[in-house]
Amino acid sequence: MFDKYEFVKEDMKKIDEFILENIKTNSPTIKKAIDDLVLSGGKRIRPLLVIAIARMGEYSEEKIIPIAASIEIMHMATLIHDDIIDDSKMRRGRKSIQSKYGKETAVFTGDFLFSQAFNLIADIISKENLKLIARGVKAICEGEIEQFDNRYNLDLSIRKYLKRIYRKTALLFAISCESGASQAGLTKEMIRAMRHFGLEIGVAFQIVDDILDYEGVERIVGKPLGSDLLNGIYTLPLIYALKTDRKKAIEGILKKRDLSRRDVNHIIKEVRLSGGIDYSKELAVKYVKKAVKYLEIMPDCEQKNLMMDIADDVLKRNY
Amino acid sequence: MFDKYEFVKEDMKKIDEFILENIKTNSPTIKKAIDDLVLSGGKRIRPLLVIAIARMGEYSEEKIIPIAASIEIMHMATLIHDDIIDDSKMRRGRKSIQSKYGKETAVFTGDFLFSQAFNLIADIISKENLKLIARGVKAICEGEIEQFDNRYNLDLSIRKYLKRIYRKTALLFAISCESGASQAGLTKEMIRAMRHFGLEIGVAFQIVDDILDYEGVERIVGKPLGSDLLNGIYTLPLIYALKTDRKKAIEGILKKRDLSRRDVNHIIKEVRLSGGIDYSKELAVKYVKKAVKYLEIMPDCEQKNLMMDIADDVLKRNY
Repeated sequence: MFDKYEFVKEDMKKIDEFILENIKTNSPTIKKAIDDLVLSGGKRIRPLLVIAIARMGEYSEEKIIPIAASIEIMHMATLIHDDIIDDSKMRRGRKSIQSKYGKETAVFTGDFLFSQAFNLIADIISKENLKLIARGVKAICEGEIEQFDNRYNLDLSIRKYLKRIYRKTALLFAISCESGASQAGLTKEMIRAMRHFGLEIGVAFQIVDDILDYEGVERIVGKPLGSDLLNGIYTLPLIYALKTDRKKAIEGILKKRDLSRRDVNHIIKEVRLSGGIDYSKELAVKYVKKAVKYLEIMPDCEQKNLMMDIADDVLKRNY
Repeated sequence: MFDKYEFVKEDMKKIDEFILENIKTNSPTIKKAIDDLVLSGGKRIRPLLVIAIARMGEYSEEKIIPIAASIEIMHMATLIHDDIIDDSKMRRGRKSIQSKYGKETAVFTGDFLFSQAFNLIADIISKENLKLIARGVKAICEGEIEQFDNRYNLDLSIRKYLKRIYRKTALLFAISCESGASQAGLTKEMIRAMRHFGLEIGVAFQIVDDILDYEGVERIVGKPLGSDLLNGIYTLPLIYALKTDRKKAIEGILKKRDLSRRDVNHIIKEVRLSGGIDYSKELAVKYVKKAVKYLEIMPDCEQKNLMMDIADDVLKRNY
C-alpha cells in the first residue's frame, strides 16, 4: 500500500514473520487460527504507525519490531473476540475464527494472544510503555461494553459516539504512536504531538469504518452492509440521520428490532438521504486535518511524508 | 477456612480490597460484574499459596498483595471465559456473568481483567515473573482448547487427561508458588520445590474438581452434576470407567450425544460402579502426598503447617 517507501514493505514483512515465529504453541487449532489471521492480511496500520514514528528517532529494530508486532497481536485478539459478539461470519473477506472453529476456540485463542503479546514485550519495553499498552486494551474493552449496553438506544448523542470510538479505536492508535515515539527517544513535545496524531487519525479511521457499513462494496469490505445496524449498533451516519426530518421514518423501521434485509436497505437509503453519510465524511476529514497539523512539529523527512500518506489513506480506504 | 492462621484472614481481606480498589473502570456494567465476582467468594487458593510461601522469606506486602491479587484476577478472567464455553448458567452458586449480562459482556469483562492484571503488576514484579505469569495464562488457553477439541472423544487416555489438567490448572498453581517464593528471595532449591508443590497440588485440585461433577452435592457445588458430561468433556472418572467392563454400557449411552437428564444419571451410576471415582480419589491422594514431600525442604513454621493444611483441604473440599 505504501510501497514507495522502501522500508515499509520490509518492516511489515518482518512484523508478520515475527508474529508467526514467536507465537509458539503446541495446539494445532491455535496455530491454524493464527496463521489464518496473519495470512489474511489486514491493514497493519497500528504497527505501521509505530515503525514510521520510531524511524524518526534512534531506531532499534530489536525493540521496535516486537512492540509493533505485539500491538498488532493485541488488536487481533480484540478482533477475534469482537467477532464472537457480533456473531460475525466473515472477517477480512474470510470466515471468522468463530464461524470456522467455534466460539470456544475464538475465546481462548484471543486470550492466548493477549498473554503472548505481554510475554513478548515484557523484557524489552519500558514499564511505562507496558502499562500504557495494557491501558489501551482496557479502554477497548470499556468501549465495546458501552457499545453493547447501548444497543438499540435511539437517543445516542454524537458526543457519546465520539467518546465511544475514542476508547474503542483511537486510544490504541494513540498508544501505537506514543510507544514508537518514546521508544525512539523523541522529545517530550514530539511524543505528545504523535500521541495526538494517533488519536485524531484513530477517530477518523473508525468514522470511515462506520461509513463503510452504509456504503461500502460488500465484496471489498468483506462482510454484508448494515451488519452493525442488524446488531442494534447505531453509528454516526444513523445517529446524525435521527436528528433530521428522516427521524420518524427510520424510527418506525428500527422499532421492529428484528430487521429484514429489506428493512436494512430501507434504513441505509434513508440515512443516505438524510445527509448522514456526507456529514460523517466531513467529520472524518476534519479529524484527519487536525491530525496532520500535529505533524508540523516533526522535521521534514521520508517518514513524515509516509504519515501524511497514511492520514490521507484513512479517508480513501474502502475496506 | 484457614482462620486459625492469624495472617490468613487479614491477607485475604487485603487481596479482595486490593482487587476492588484497583480495578477501576467507568463502565457500570464491568464494575457490577467484578463486584459480583469478588463478593461471591471463591476459594482464593492461588493467592493464598503466593502469600503463605512469600511469608516464609522476606515478606514485602506492597509487592506480594498485588502479585497475589493479579493471579486471582487472571484466574477470574479465565473463569468468566470458561463459562461462555460451557454455557454455564451458574458459577459459585450464583448466576454466571454470561447468563446475567450476556456473552458480550463476559468476553470483554474477561479481557478487561487480563489487561488490568498485567497493568497492576507491570511495575512491581520482575520481568521474569511477569513472563512466567503470561506463560501460565497461555498454558490455560492451550489446555482449554485441547479439551474442547477432544470433546466426545472416547479414546482419551489417562496420560492425555493428566497433560491437559497440568496445563489447564496445575501450571498456574505452580506459578503462584514460584512467584511467591522467588519474590521473597528464597533459595533456588526452595523455589524449585515450591513450584513442584504447586504442580502436584494443582493436579490433585483438578482431579477433585472433576470428581465433584460425579458425586458432589449440587447445592454445595453450585451447578448441576454431570455438567462436563453434557458438554462432551470426559474427565478421569469416566476415562477410567471406559477401560473397565462398564465400557459397553457407557458407550451405548454416550453415542447418543444429546443426553437426557436420565442418561446422565445412568452414566454417573455406571462410573461409580466401575470404580472410576475411587480410582480418581486415590490418584488425587497420591498427588497430594507427592506435593507434601516437597515441603520437607522448608523450615518448620506456621506457614509450612498452613501449606500442609491446604494440601489436605484439596482432598476434603466439596465445592
